[in-house]
Amino acid sequence: MDEDDILRIMKMRIIESYRWKVDIIKPISKELGISEDQLEEILIRRLDMASIDALHPRYESSKHYCIKKKLHSDLRLCWLCDVMNILSEEESEEIKNKIAAEILTKGKSYQEAMEDGRKDLLEYLMR
Amino acid sequence: MDEDDILRIMKMRIIESYRWKVDIIKPISKELGISEDQLEEILIRRLDMASIDALHPRYESSKHYCIKKKLHSDLRLCWLCDVMNILSEEESEEIKNKIAAEILTKGKSYQEAMEDGRKDLLEYLMR
Repeated sequence: MDEDDILRIMKMRIIESYRWKVDIIKPISKELGISEDQLEEILIRRLDMASIDALHPRYESSKHYCIKKKLHSDLRLCWLCDVMNILSEEESEEIKNKIAAEILTKGKSYQEAMEDGRKDLLEYLMR
Repeated sequence: MDEDDILRIMKMRIIESYRWKVDIIKPISKELGISEDQLEEILIRRLDMASIDALHPRYESSKHYCIKKKLHSDLRLCWLCDVMNILSEEESEEIKNKIAAEILTKGKSYQEAMEDGRKDLLEYLMR
């Protein structure tokens, strides 16, 4: 067994752990429309040992950031806020933070929280 | 008729022009799930005359920017590129620019171009 094989086994051991499976491999492979095996292969090929080690905590702590980015897009805040200025930066942040909190701390589904947030957004706009 | 009424009529005249209807009012009201009348009311209330005047060219020139933002979200590049680093910034830009060009210059639908782009993305990842 050469060094590459050993490294591969070490990487695999991390990636195939229970928390990795549940938190990263399952949701991301589903979102990308690829199999779990394919995603594992991509991660092993593209990341070194240190990056793999750091990824789980990094992923957890970036959830809030990525959810807000996705909300910005799904609620069309690029148009409404960045381009048209019919919603202020502060209003936009307030709406996104509220929705993100409902997803991350109250366990609401993204879709449900986003639809509720859309109603809030329209109320802001109608004021 | 007071000054507010006159201002309102002047704003209305711009917003109800043909190009405004086709380019802004119809698509944005549809995306927000509100009526065209409601969107017009929001714009008139929230924007002054100068902003309304400037909005159409501003909207046109920001299309490329907003489409790329949306692609970043829909292709999960926040995870893949910003957080996980399994796709480089350059690869991400390349994929998004290609898709945006297909939408804006070749008239492909967003959905179709995005699905094709997802295949490119997976090819990059599998390399």
